[in-house]
Amino acid sequence: MCHTVAVTERIDHTLRGRWTPSTAELPPHALKLLRQRTGLGDVRTPARAPEVPGSSLAADARTALDAVVGPGFVRVDRDSRLGRAGGLSYLDLLRQRGDGDLAVPDAVVLPATPEQVTDVLRVCAEHDVAVVPFGGGTSVVGGVAAVRGDKASVIALDLVRLDQLVSVDPVSRIAVLQAGLPAPEAERLLAPHGFTIGHVPQSYERATIGGFAATRSAGQASSGYGRFEDMVEGVRLATPVGEWRLGAAPASAAGPDLKQLVIGSEGAFGVLTEVSLRVRPRSVVERYEGFVVDGWERGASAVRRLAQRRVLADVTRLSDVDETEVSLSLAGGWKTAALKGYLRGRGLKEPCLLVLGWHGASEAEVKRRRRETVRGLRAVSLGKPLGEAWRHGRFNGPRQRDALMEVGVCVETLETATHWSRISRLRESVREALRDALGECIVMCHISHAYETGASLYFTVLAARDADDPVGQWQVAKAAAGEAISGVGTISHHHAVGTDHAPYLEAEIGALGVAVLASVKRTLDPTGVLNPGKLIPGGIVSGG
Amino acid sequence: MCHTVAVTERIDHTLRGRWTPSTAELPPHALKLLRQRTGLGDVRTPARAPEVPGSSLAADARTALDAVVGPGFVRVDRDSRLGRAGGLSYLDLLRQRGDGDLAVPDAVVLPATPEQVTDVLRVCAEHDVAVVPFGGGTSVVGGVAAVRGDKASVIALDLVRLDQLVSVDPVSRIAVLQAGLPAPEAERLLAPHGFTIGHVPQSYERATIGGFAATRSAGQASSGYGRFEDMVEGVRLATPVGEWRLGAAPASAAGPDLKQLVIGSEGAFGVLTEVSLRVRPRSVVERYEGFVVDGWERGASAVRRLAQRRVLADVTRLSDVDETEVSLSLAGGWKTAALKGYLRGRGLKEPCLLVLGWHGASEAEVKRRRRETVRGLRAVSLGKPLGEAWRHGRFNGPRQRDALMEVGVCVETLETATHWSRISRLRESVREALRDALGECIVMCHISHAYETGASLYFTVLAARDADDPVGQWQVAKAAAGEAISGVGTISHHHAVGTDHAPYLEAEIGALGVAVLASVKRTLDPTGVLNPGKLIPGGIVSGG
Repeated sequence: MCHTVAVTERIDHTLRGRWTPSTAELPPHALKLLRQRTGLGDVRTPARAPEVPGSSLAADARTALDAVVGPGFVRVDRDSRLGRAGGLSYLDLLRQRGDGDLAVPDAVVLPATPEQVTDVLRVCAEHDVAVVPFGGGTSVVGGVAAVRGDKASVIALDLVRLDQLVSVDPVSRIAVLQAGLPAPEAERLLAPHGFTIGHVPQSYERATIGGFAATRSAGQASSGYGRFEDMVEGVRLATPVGEWRLGAAPASAAGPDLKQLVIGSEGAFGVLTEVSLRVRPRSVVERYEGFVVDGWERGASAVRRLAQRRVLADVTRLSDVDETEVSLSLAGGWKTAALKGYLRGRGLKEPCLLVLGWHGASEAEVKRRRRETVRGLRAVSLGKPLGEAWRHGRFNGPRQRDALMEVGVCVETLETATHWSRISRLRESVREALRDALGECIVMCHISHAYETGASLYFTVLAARDADDPVGQWQVAKAAAGEAISGVGTISHHHAVGTDHAPYLEAEIGALGVAVLASVKRTLDPTGVLNPGKLIPGGIVSGG
Repeated sequence: MCHTVAVTERIDHTLRGRWTPSTAELPPHALKLLRQRTGLGDVRTPARAPEVPGSSLAADARTALDAVVGPGFVRVDRDSRLGRAGGLSYLDLLRQRGDGDLAVPDAVVLPATPEQVTDVLRVCAEHDVAVVPFGGGTSVVGGVAAVRGDKASVIALDLVRLDQLVSVDPVSRIAVLQAGLPAPEAERLLAPHGFTIGHVPQSYERATIGGFAATRSAGQASSGYGRFEDMVEGVRLATPVGEWRLGAAPASAAGPDLKQLVIGSEGAFGVLTEVSLRVRPRSVVERYEGFVVDGWERGASAVRRLAQRRVLADVTRLSDVDETEVSLSLAGGWKTAALKGYLRGRGLKEPCLLVLGWHGASEAEVKRRRRETVRGLRAVSLGKPLGEAWRHGRFNGPRQRDALMEVGVCVETLETATHWSRISRLRESVREALRDALGECIVMCHISHAYETGASLYFTVLAARDADDPVGQWQVAKAAAGEAISGVGTISHHHAVGTDHAPYLEAEIGALGVAVLASVKRTLDPTGVLNPGKLIPGGIVSGG
């Protein structure tokens, strides 16, 4: 096939992108801040290579898989398997550094077509092999953990070779993309057609089209382009009992919206092989601008009014005081002392950074939309440079985290969403829960996705890592946050359920919700080979 | 309870609103047009009273139901049962006029609370009684037909007493409404809070909140306010195995969106008792305006561009040439000859009416939005009167149909949606199918719901009724239209599946889609008492 070279590169890149301890360094003033605020010590904690047991994939299963995808595309070598052992959560990174038990798949299987994916699932069901669908491997909730459940072995089903732009309908503005396409590659293929997806989550550089759909992803520009599920016109799902296609029309009353049952199914109902997406013309003009609002409450109310007036910027992002302070401090190039003086001079005692970004077909359009947004917005503009600085660093989170890991920081994010009337109370109770659990720490929060009825809350936590029990330290903190969220907001606004949120799902969707998910799973995956332990609480995986 | 008088009135109104042959008369020029175009004769066809068999509700079931809702609220009299015998499709109206077999429920049960609904379902499951949830009774697809399936008897579960505005959260702009509230009553209750739902389908005057959600309704102003499913923040569903509540946040990645599995479930999975809705401030200024575009293709392209530029008016409605001609002819007050001359003078050979309506908080806002919409729109404005005329008559369809029924017309509507690149081909093939089936007839079409990727098509058919086999005449035509739609668009954009579209569902959602629906039904309704024969093809209703 014409894409062999590119794909081989990407397969290797997937491996290279992991296990290489980051060499990025934190600026000295950032380290100083962390030492002041979290009691961080001076000890570097080098990574140890994790233990990798031998593959327990049975010979007959191996032979059958070889027959489907070709012998070169079933890999059992250490590097390939280690390269797909879990995702990018803090606990994953700890495990990959040798802390805690790392689940490693018994093999990596690399199908080239949707048909091969269906055949692989059939073979796995026949041979008692669990299947973990693997895209960019960027899950931060255990969604790609190599859990075998009650199966004899487990494979990572890496979709990297499903990397085709299948078709573009320029009139309807619909593109059909294969699930393994990483987001930047999808954009590169759409560019000659003049289209963009406009989906830019922090995982953008590595995450895939299939992964976005499987996890109900929301990008940084979701106010403008919508959540990923809003863009999905159709899906093609491989399941152990055959292929399922959905998406006859832009909207339908032909029964429940089953597409919305597939989107967010996290590989537990099937493996997405193609996704039809609503695309938009590539923007010609993009304008990012930093504003400052005085205090969280005022800021949240301002964002709420923008959402309810339906004049949100495409990117709308409000940091609380703590996140604003750390952001400005870490952005070394910024003369933060001067900025602080300026803000004090303008009477802003509790500065909260509000980044707004507009995309449009022309200067005039962006200007008009900006005017609509800022009308009545009581915020001080700090101009384009601050907006551009945010845009420049928008995908740096994971790299910064690698650097922080190196110097002994416990660093993780978590998120939720709730209705406006509960948003500030929820933010406060999550902060409190995290502080109670971690002691001296920095808890930062922002709103990055706003709706007429509510918004998301995204927390970043920094603490000195517990050298003796780093895994336990975070598990306690995460559980405390989960308890604070459960019953007030959703356990995840855009990170999905995976293994980490499965214990909280029943409180959110009810026992009947769990029973419904289990019944759908039994129908599509009767022997329970698909992504065991994910999504459905209690690991209901087998037929009944 | 405080609402007893109002409810009693509404219960009686439900009865009064049916069976009374309409006394509305058609203007003479309308009749003339019909005679010219459809071969309609001069014979009035009076209705006959349909046959109503005795109730076969068993005495012990009756006693158990009495115990739940109170003796006055289980009704077995002829009028009550006849008043809930089916919906408002052409075939329903024929059956109610004595043509064809009318399915009549064995009893009408009127619960007062969500808890009573759950108890009624439990009792029905225990006593082998099928349950048809009944709101406004406006289904045009057989959704409320009193089908008993394999059950001993069937009740209409009329939700008219669930008529409370439960709560309003003015900050989050969410209102919780009971499912039995008719739309106008819901608006009346929200008005003092300054809010509106903004959902105005043609069935507005009678349809209920629960019915909108159960059928994925889309209102005439859906471009502005969204489809009904876009407004639903949460649901409370009574099922035979207990109550199910969903809706923790404005958006979530906590697994598949199960709310979207409940919305559109047409009473086959449970009975909606409460719906949480996103509400908006009541508009202060509304402007409706009529435009004319030259030719269907140009008109459809114009609407597509509005949708893709995201500057649709809140109401956006494009009629084809035939609908434009009939609309202008039937609107007796219009000097149509003069209008036609004017349009010819402007070079418009194939005039297609485009009605646009904007709602806003101020004149300035509406003005600004109108400017955005009409910029680059190659259409001739006919001014506000034509727009206002449309608005004035917007809910008249059902009444006009009653009048047409009286004079022997076969009159029905059907609808679909597809992507823009297929829209004109689909319109043509449905028109052809209907003409082939009906012979001399008028087929009119409009787009009333536009999206970035596609739009709905709504057809109105007028023919001389076949006096010998009026039911068969329409069944043939409907099947021909269904075949033309199947595989190209959705079998329903906003009318739902009911009994009438069930045969086409598998072609749209696949055998796996049907299996998934059946598995969800088995989980929530193990004995299959809920709305037998609706939604799920082949009547898969019993546990397995």
